[in-house]
Amino acid sequence: MNEKLERLKKWEFKRSAYDLLLSTAYFDDETIAPSGGREYRYERLAYMASESYKISTDHKIETLLDELKKEDLAFEERRTVELLIKDFQKIKAIPQDVYEEYTKLTLQSTAAWQKAKSTNDYSIFKPYLLKIIATLKKIALLREPEKDVYDTLLDDYEPFMTTARYDVFFDLIKKELLPLIAKIQKAKPITDDFLYKYYPKDRQEKLMTKLKEVLGFTSDWGYMGVSMHPFTSGFSKYDVRITTAYDEHNIASAIYSLVHEAGHAFYEHQMAERFDGTILKAVSSGMHESQSRLLENFIGRRRSFIKNFYPFLKELYADQLKDVTLDDFTRAVCVAKPSLIRTDADELTYPIHILIRYELEKGIFDGSIKVEDLDEVWSDMYYKYLGIRPDDMASGILQDIHWSQGSFGYFPTYALGSAISAQIMHKLEEDIDVDGELEKGNLKVLTDYLGEHIHQYGALFDLDDLLKKATGEEFDPHYYIDYLKDKYTKLYHLDEGR
Amino acid sequence: MNEKLERLKKWEFKRSAYDLLLSTAYFDDETIAPSGGREYRYERLAYMASESYKISTDHKIETLLDELKKEDLAFEERRTVELLIKDFQKIKAIPQDVYEEYTKLTLQSTAAWQKAKSTNDYSIFKPYLLKIIATLKKIALLREPEKDVYDTLLDDYEPFMTTARYDVFFDLIKKELLPLIAKIQKAKPITDDFLYKYYPKDRQEKLMTKLKEVLGFTSDWGYMGVSMHPFTSGFSKYDVRITTAYDEHNIASAIYSLVHEAGHAFYEHQMAERFDGTILKAVSSGMHESQSRLLENFIGRRRSFIKNFYPFLKELYADQLKDVTLDDFTRAVCVAKPSLIRTDADELTYPIHILIRYELEKGIFDGSIKVEDLDEVWSDMYYKYLGIRPDDMASGILQDIHWSQGSFGYFPTYALGSAISAQIMHKLEEDIDVDGELEKGNLKVLTDYLGEHIHQYGALFDLDDLLKKATGEEFDPHYYIDYLKDKYTKLYHLDEGR
Repeated sequence: MNEKLERLKKWEFKRSAYDLLLSTAYFDDETIAPSGGREYRYERLAYMASESYKISTDHKIETLLDELKKEDLAFEERRTVELLIKDFQKIKAIPQDVYEEYTKLTLQSTAAWQKAKSTNDYSIFKPYLLKIIATLKKIALLREPEKDVYDTLLDDYEPFMTTARYDVFFDLIKKELLPLIAKIQKAKPITDDFLYKYYPKDRQEKLMTKLKEVLGFTSDWGYMGVSMHPFTSGFSKYDVRITTAYDEHNIASAIYSLVHEAGHAFYEHQMAERFDGTILKAVSSGMHESQSRLLENFIGRRRSFIKNFYPFLKELYADQLKDVTLDDFTRAVCVAKPSLIRTDADELTYPIHILIRYELEKGIFDGSIKVEDLDEVWSDMYYKYLGIRPDDMASGILQDIHWSQGSFGYFPTYALGSAISAQIMHKLEEDIDVDGELEKGNLKVLTDYLGEHIHQYGALFDLDDLLKKATGEEFDPHYYIDYLKDKYTKLYHLDEGR
Repeated sequence: MNEKLERLKKWEFKRSAYDLLLSTAYFDDETIAPSGGREYRYERLAYMASESYKISTDHKIETLLDELKKEDLAFEERRTVELLIKDFQKIKAIPQDVYEEYTKLTLQSTAAWQKAKSTNDYSIFKPYLLKIIATLKKIALLREPEKDVYDTLLDDYEPFMTTARYDVFFDLIKKELLPLIAKIQKAKPITDDFLYKYYPKDRQEKLMTKLKEVLGFTSDWGYMGVSMHPFTSGFSKYDVRITTAYDEHNIASAIYSLVHEAGHAFYEHQMAERFDGTILKAVSSGMHESQSRLLENFIGRRRSFIKNFYPFLKELYADQLKDVTLDDFTRAVCVAKPSLIRTDADELTYPIHILIRYELEKGIFDGSIKVEDLDEVWSDMYYKYLGIRPDDMASGILQDIHWSQGSFGYFPTYALGSAISAQIMHKLEEDIDVDGELEKGNLKVLTDYLGEHIHQYGALFDLDDLLKKATGEEFDPHYYIDYLKDKYTKLYHLDEGR
């Protein structure tokens, strides 16, 4: 191998070692670490993040990359160099002290958010949120002085998308889905009250064990913990961490949190092993969310999938699910109804939750929304689009962890991911008899397919190239719209004469 | 503050940041990390350990310490400088590549040990064990070319002790305890068969929750995980991690593992907060084990302590403990009987398990034992002292994790710790009505006492000085011998005419 590439590899290894230890510490912090040790921990985590930052901004490597760029490299190496150069440009614009301060801020802010959410007190979190927004603005302008702040942030999560493209996408969602949601509100309701009975946690834990088995999420490469907000962290191909969260008054919550995170987990697990510890592991959030949303909704909410664990679930909760058939349960987890909590939202109203966050974020950074009043604007926006208002802060502005971690620009990728997954699923259904396989318990056929057509490539291709490769077409949101219209028209019998 | 001390503080902070991340990763590895990710993880952990090694051996700090040594420092600062100089001398003798290799070796070796133990196959672990012994010899001779290897190793865990001192100590144990054990074998046996019925794990988990409550081990500063071999890791005053291990055929196992580790945990938690991240947190193993053994045996096996959780235990396992009274249970967890597993051994035969390991380790390093045959020598030694032989490797040479981690010289501190705890307990009983407080559920009075007289001081004093401070006397193993003779003579009615 080229001596320069050797040097690059050594540097990547070093960086991946710091990354692994930081990821481990973050996972630990979110799942099990005693709250009392936070101050001690966060000071040291921030310091180690700055050590890692020093490595990531090593001038010698920047020079090396510039040299490598001019060489005749193979496809994979060229892509690596390009992605690293982009990363360098992004990170080197931030002075180290700003970076260290910002890391500490996001850690403290996440802790403040947790406390604020559990006590339903926005005032604990608000000062941190405002500081994060101000710091992000500053950083974005340091990075790209000529660009709109929000476009700079969007690029971090999905380089394919811009405010202009998202505007078109969300306009389509507004135009097509809002009328459908309104129609359903007038249709005959589907019974789902049994989902919200009391489901004790200890038995939900057993259900998770069963579900992991159904999904093929095994302990030799995966671990599931519990955190306030479910997430996935891929340490390496054979070490993928996910979390779930239990709601004793909503049995669907932990189920679909797990299935969603398992979608992310398979992505991490099925990438080529040689990408471990390299920038080629850094798949865009848009693509990543497409795989979690695909497993959660397009597979997870099918009768043929639910059939694999429903008898076990019924045994665990015989009283709660008395007289509830597999069909009843399947329909219930698809009920479309305006609601306040994004992660528990049904497939149809889900993109509206994202639309709201998109408009909020856009407004925050173009100055049209006064951040001082963000909680009220949040509430107004829910009323405008879904006709409901949060009754407390925990169901309003405090519900998501993202902003506390500085993840502005992430939310839109959830809706985008859903749309991408519809397009991929359309192709998958042409190639595989999905229900047939699920009826036989062969989820592996589907995850293998995704591994082969999507996951293995990691960040080798941009979203549009990968989509063309996997589906033969450019990104087309109409698959998503058509899928939702078709599914919900049938589910609520909207076509039938009244 | 002195500018030099300022610089030292900054360096200590940096070192503590690396330590924290490494400890977190080790804890993660021992408790939850997927086995598949080991290779990726261990390569990076070894690298990060070598990064941390670089900081620990920073020449500039060594010079600084030499300068500080000549200054007129307050007691605490002088002690810090002395301990750090000792640490420097120890670590700088090891070349960085040897250190990195050794770190990787112990990680791989621990994984090999886990596999070997769970499959009962010594051949998986043996090559690692031999390599660790050879490397340790090499390192010890690099560090102290003039000193006996085993003395160098013993010093790492308890500077107060040497082979000469341990020889005297273990001779006393042999002389006094072996005849007592032999006598008990001929006495009327105490019923303890109910301890070894089938105790399903899920209910043991509930028992752990109750026990943590009784002990005052709370989630704001402590976390309990599960690992193959129970251990404690103190990250900071308000972040102390312990683990337990479940044996479904021995209800006493998890109980006394937890109580033992809680003893360590209180030590870590009750040290002065200003010691966090400093060398003053590095208490010797001899002192540390005194606190775990004290809680486990001198408190944990008392009727008045067991009373606090026994009704709950009986409720959990009504069938298994039918007709078993609190008195029956208390007597059963004190039964003295030669056995194969150290961690499950009773108080009286326990030091014999340690004696065996001490003689093995001494023999390994003075060359009188052929390491090639270590498993057989192990078996012979158990036969010589306890009259029994392991029936498999998992109950023989594979039972403990220590050697796989390179911890040779640690074992003797368990017996030493037990002897120290007897001396401390003797004083404590003069000052406090132990049973009276325990009957009222006031364990806190006792842990507070230990906090005040022992824990708060961290590594400020050597073992002998701290003992003098806490009990008014030098180390005297007769308290230990007298306690055991008295307890077991009464328990087995050895004084009564036959």
